[in-house]
Amino acid sequence: RPGRGARLPDRPQRATPGAEEAARALPAPSALTGPAPGGFVTAPAPSSAHRLPFRAGAMVPRLVPGCARGFFGRWAARAPPASAEQRAWAAAPRAPVRRDSSGASCGAPPVPLTRERYPVQRLPFSEVCKDDLAAFERLIPGRVVTGPEEVQASNVDWLRSLRGCSQVLLRPRTTREVSGILRYCHERNLAVTPQGGNTSMVGGSVPVFDEIVLSTSLMDQVLSFQDVSGALVCQAGCVLERLSRYVEQRGFTMPLDLGAKGSCHIGGNVATHAGGLRLLRYGSLRGTVLGLEVVLADGTVLDCLTSLRKDNTGYDVKQLFIGSEGTLGVITAVSLLCPPQPRAVNVAFLGCPGFAEVLQTFRTCREMLGEILSAFEFMDTECMQLVGRHLCLACPVRESPFYVLVETSGSSADHDAEKLTALLEHALGSGLLTDGTVATDERRIKALWALRERVPEALSRDGYVFKYDLSLPLERLYDLVGAVRSRLGPRARRVVGYGHLGERPRFAAFAALWPRLRLALGGRVCGCGVPAPPWAAPRVLWGVLAGVPYAPARGKLKGGARPWAAQGRWVRWSEPRGRWGQGPRRPGTLASSVCVPAGDGNLHLNVTADAFSTTLLAALEPFVYEWTAERRGSVSAEHGLGFRKKDVLGYSKPPEAQLLMRQLKALLDPKGILNPYKVLPSRA
Amino acid sequence: RPGRGARLPDRPQRATPGAEEAARALPAPSALTGPAPGGFVTAPAPSSAHRLPFRAGAMVPRLVPGCARGFFGRWAARAPPASAEQRAWAAAPRAPVRRDSSGASCGAPPVPLTRERYPVQRLPFSEVCKDDLAAFERLIPGRVVTGPEEVQASNVDWLRSLRGCSQVLLRPRTTREVSGILRYCHERNLAVTPQGGNTSMVGGSVPVFDEIVLSTSLMDQVLSFQDVSGALVCQAGCVLERLSRYVEQRGFTMPLDLGAKGSCHIGGNVATHAGGLRLLRYGSLRGTVLGLEVVLADGTVLDCLTSLRKDNTGYDVKQLFIGSEGTLGVITAVSLLCPPQPRAVNVAFLGCPGFAEVLQTFRTCREMLGEILSAFEFMDTECMQLVGRHLCLACPVRESPFYVLVETSGSSADHDAEKLTALLEHALGSGLLTDGTVATDERRIKALWALRERVPEALSRDGYVFKYDLSLPLERLYDLVGAVRSRLGPRARRVVGYGHLGERPRFAAFAALWPRLRLALGGRVCGCGVPAPPWAAPRVLWGVLAGVPYAPARGKLKGGARPWAAQGRWVRWSEPRGRWGQGPRRPGTLASSVCVPAGDGNLHLNVTADAFSTTLLAALEPFVYEWTAERRGSVSAEHGLGFRKKDVLGYSKPPEAQLLMRQLKALLDPKGILNPYKVLPSRA
Repeated sequence: RPGRGARLPDRPQRATPGAEEAARALPAPSALTGPAPGGFVTAPAPSSAHRLPFRAGAMVPRLVPGCARGFFGRWAARAPPASAEQRAWAAAPRAPVRRDSSGASCGAPPVPLTRERYPVQRLPFSEVCKDDLAAFERLIPGRVVTGPEEVQASNVDWLRSLRGCSQVLLRPRTTREVSGILRYCHERNLAVTPQGGNTSMVGGSVPVFDEIVLSTSLMDQVLSFQDVSGALVCQAGCVLERLSRYVEQRGFTMPLDLGAKGSCHIGGNVATHAGGLRLLRYGSLRGTVLGLEVVLADGTVLDCLTSLRKDNTGYDVKQLFIGSEGTLGVITAVSLLCPPQPRAVNVAFLGCPGFAEVLQTFRTCREMLGEILSAFEFMDTECMQLVGRHLCLACPVRESPFYVLVETSGSSADHDAEKLTALLEHALGSGLLTDGTVATDERRIKALWALRERVPEALSRDGYVFKYDLSLPLERLYDLVGAVRSRLGPRARRVVGYGHLGERPRFAAFAALWPRLRLALGGRVCGCGVPAPPWAAPRVLWGVLAGVPYAPARGKLKGGARPWAAQGRWVRWSEPRGRWGQGPRRPGTLASSVCVPAGDGNLHLNVTADAFSTTLLAALEPFVYEWTAERRGSVSAEHGLGFRKKDVLGYSKPPEAQLLMRQLKALLDPKGILNPYKVLPSRA
Repeated sequence: RPGRGARLPDRPQRATPGAEEAARALPAPSALTGPAPGGFVTAPAPSSAHRLPFRAGAMVPRLVPGCARGFFGRWAARAPPASAEQRAWAAAPRAPVRRDSSGASCGAPPVPLTRERYPVQRLPFSEVCKDDLAAFERLIPGRVVTGPEEVQASNVDWLRSLRGCSQVLLRPRTTREVSGILRYCHERNLAVTPQGGNTSMVGGSVPVFDEIVLSTSLMDQVLSFQDVSGALVCQAGCVLERLSRYVEQRGFTMPLDLGAKGSCHIGGNVATHAGGLRLLRYGSLRGTVLGLEVVLADGTVLDCLTSLRKDNTGYDVKQLFIGSEGTLGVITAVSLLCPPQPRAVNVAFLGCPGFAEVLQTFRTCREMLGEILSAFEFMDTECMQLVGRHLCLACPVRESPFYVLVETSGSSADHDAEKLTALLEHALGSGLLTDGTVATDERRIKALWALRERVPEALSRDGYVFKYDLSLPLERLYDLVGAVRSRLGPRARRVVGYGHLGERPRFAAFAALWPRLRLALGGRVCGCGVPAPPWAAPRVLWGVLAGVPYAPARGKLKGGARPWAAQGRWVRWSEPRGRWGQGPRRPGTLASSVCVPAGDGNLHLNVTADAFSTTLLAALEPFVYEWTAERRGSVSAEHGLGFRKKDVLGYSKPPEAQLLMRQLKALLDPKGILNPYKVLPSRA
């Protein structure tokens, strides 16, 4: 298909004739995977951690308290635009885990079958027969894969904890082919699992039983890019990092960025509504995705691939597919608005003595950096130890209990430097930071980012990982890590926490309310009699505020219960494991709407162990979900629900919303063939 | 309901006992509607235009070419924080049009009934009887309005061109009451038109026949506001301007702003997915709305009123209701993320010699102002004449063919001033501007904004208004105004254009493609033989690019036809009035994906006349829609479809998307009682 757009030359072995003639080509693979020019984080390094090829003060100057001004005085002059070599840097990471035909990677134990580990029943779909294979072969000649080894790689998830037993992997190249495949599968009642880069953290991208895997890996063409506006239209199988490089070479930047960018596909990112590292600056994908092309379960092509920024003609149906994880349709092409590349980017990597200081640093950044603050990430000292041990990345600052990565993106290097200087001087002077380093050129910036981005990779090398991705009120965000540590004790190898901070704290508002509440209640919280501050008994406070003073009509709210809504004379509350209760509301009490959380952060809680263990799992779940739900957090901030979290939906969504979700699924995929066993809870 | 939140004291005549005790109160009405402290735009001024109370150089200093630097040198010092009096300024405008019981405002002719002017058939809903009124009276005692005068005001739209004949107006105060009303109407098969501030430009908020009007005007409570994060939760009936003032007093700003802010309700804004004046900076409502509470057609309350910024648990069902104009559910409460108020805001009002210079000024602003550019508006000289004649607002700069309003919002006054200085020096030096003035304090900023915001009001005083709200490629944006002017000649009183600019031009990309195309086609556009540049025959170019060289299988594309999508060997095109065709694609031609517009602007095209006239309407429609569709624009950029534009949906949405819209409507409102005759085209 000459002239159909630029083919991304990332997989030379699969390149098609004529692809070389494409007008817009991404950099050649050698530029991406060649030796990194600096000696900073390149493999293979010795396994001993902290043998630092990192030269502090030369490569990334460290901050000396009180000297920030002097440093930044020289700063603007020290930041030449990154050269082509420097731009090609840092593409080496994330070497794909090699897997043998039983799904076991070299040396690692084989992954047990999902159907054996989890209590799940196969739904009555048809089984793939020889006629089906022949039909697929007619639809996509030469791209029906049945070799056990290649199919098995698509059966196992990135975390190596789930394994399906699919025997067919289909690799369409065009929307029309996807449409043909789905039309056929719909008629034959064959289940299909769409798969992008297979980097789902919740098992959303692998089959559970024998679902056909529909891979977007060959749908990797840039369909158009408008150099003037930054509107990118591409097929769903484009790898995020390559797109990122592609638009950067044209003066733009991708509005999303995440650790798995070296493997994940843009279609998968949109299907899971990925958040990632640039959310703070560019907002969510719901705003930056301009259009989608989606193939519905029956093969209908829904062409909403517009690039208009404003279009208010009827319902915005594409929104249905953003975040639906391939259960409502298969995204085949995406139109995205890429913002212009910022002229000046600075990254500060800072050490903090405690989590309170992390939060205070965040507040100070919001205050002093304003519109140029583009990312604020934190990680604990255990994370740093892990990337040191498993990936040989060195800590560029003095060891601290917490580390913070602050990124600014702006249009004036001088102005940004001035703002950052003022911030760092203030933070160093007020004891919020123990140490810090600042990078201004692209190569060093990426070196600092790698410390944070590659934490999931380091975790996966540490053992079996229990992963949680939670939205929580900022002030209590890290407490969960401590709670889990003390709950598990030596049963866990490591319990680590890292994540992104978004809004400002929530309990400040409650603290302000508290004296009035205490007064109103005669100094005692009715129902339990404990005059505790809100952070000591948030559940009780919720109850009080919602008019359910810990003793509603049907009896005491049990552990984990929380009021959900109070309307008129009625109040509803949720209980652990997705159950719901309802009772009359006490007259004259405060409304539950006061309880809406004021600001949330995103905590990635990870527990590693020697191997999967049901006792460890039982100690973690539902404890983690209940802890989160009690604080009205979300049990999945950005990973989605997939297979692993579908049954905890009730902690975050009321029954009416769950019902509507089921109705939408039934409308768009009446036979349920698209990514079954995912997103929607198994009990009806 | 003491303590249920802050009641907005905007309508004292309707204030309920106990409302005064609310903890968080908005400023008293006197502060909003009292005499403006300055003599700038206050009424009642003499009707002669251009008698200027505006003192150039004193109130808003004018720019002298070459002197921008010197001016901005004094600038930072000249911008003290606005005082309380200044903050209360400029609330006087938009005096509501008084209407008598026949729907006629004082002196204006009566508005004809919609059913008489438009060919529309009443659907078989029940008619309201006495029992129904009694039932409503039980649900909302004392708030069932049947007085002809009060009901009639809800029957006529803001533009005074549509009139329903509803005889009942319901005014619930709580979600529970709305739920009760809808449950009853659903059982009785009674049609309901939800109504907020009744400022719809497309007749989305008034009944067409005798639908019951469900007004949110008494649902005007702020439910919670978190001073630390800016998360605002409020009922749907809060007036935007009052919310804006409310959050500004707490250091935040509303993420949307529009000319109708003095009347429109936040629920209506969300229901129509209003764009407005801050879209450039804060993005669309899909990103800033954190949660919604919606009552479905059968009375079910869907509580998605979360304030979490990141929550990826299942389908984001609230997105369905954003932009659905009350046809899928009634929004009863909204949770919004308000960004922090920028520390420094500057507004420049500039004169431009032509539309090319407007575009170039926009490009220069994007380039030089970067992240602090928060709005870019343009208006033509006719708009300025209108606000002068009907509202007695004076033009602060020398008369020019076009005017541009540029707003910056940032965290550092010095940095922003420096960036703006550099921009203005550059633009003045290169002849992009003829004159300009800059305002830095709130009062003067609002004075400049009023010139642009009050254009619709001035238009409505000029006569009957034919209104169009289009997304178009930037380079051709204003050409439509000229085309309409020459088409209508003296039949129209005025043809004016104003709007917002978003992305950068589209035809630059085409211009770059053109030589190659010409080469490929032997210097001639096949099918028509005219070697014209793309802007001379865009329809032909579309055809060529899409592989339909103006002569597809079914014969020549008729006037207004345009290719929609080319997949595999097939191509589909749209024809005027929403018809669609399909035919085989020529092999070896360029793909349609190249044709995706690269950047669009939002043109508000307005035609005023002495009175409504079917011949004028016939001259305008479908001409305007076809002109837009040929350029792959959107026939409704931000106003929605409502009643007036429902039948032009086919110009912007493919048949599959229209079908899905119908399915969603059938799923959520099976009896079709919610806002009937709106959004969805009348032909099935």
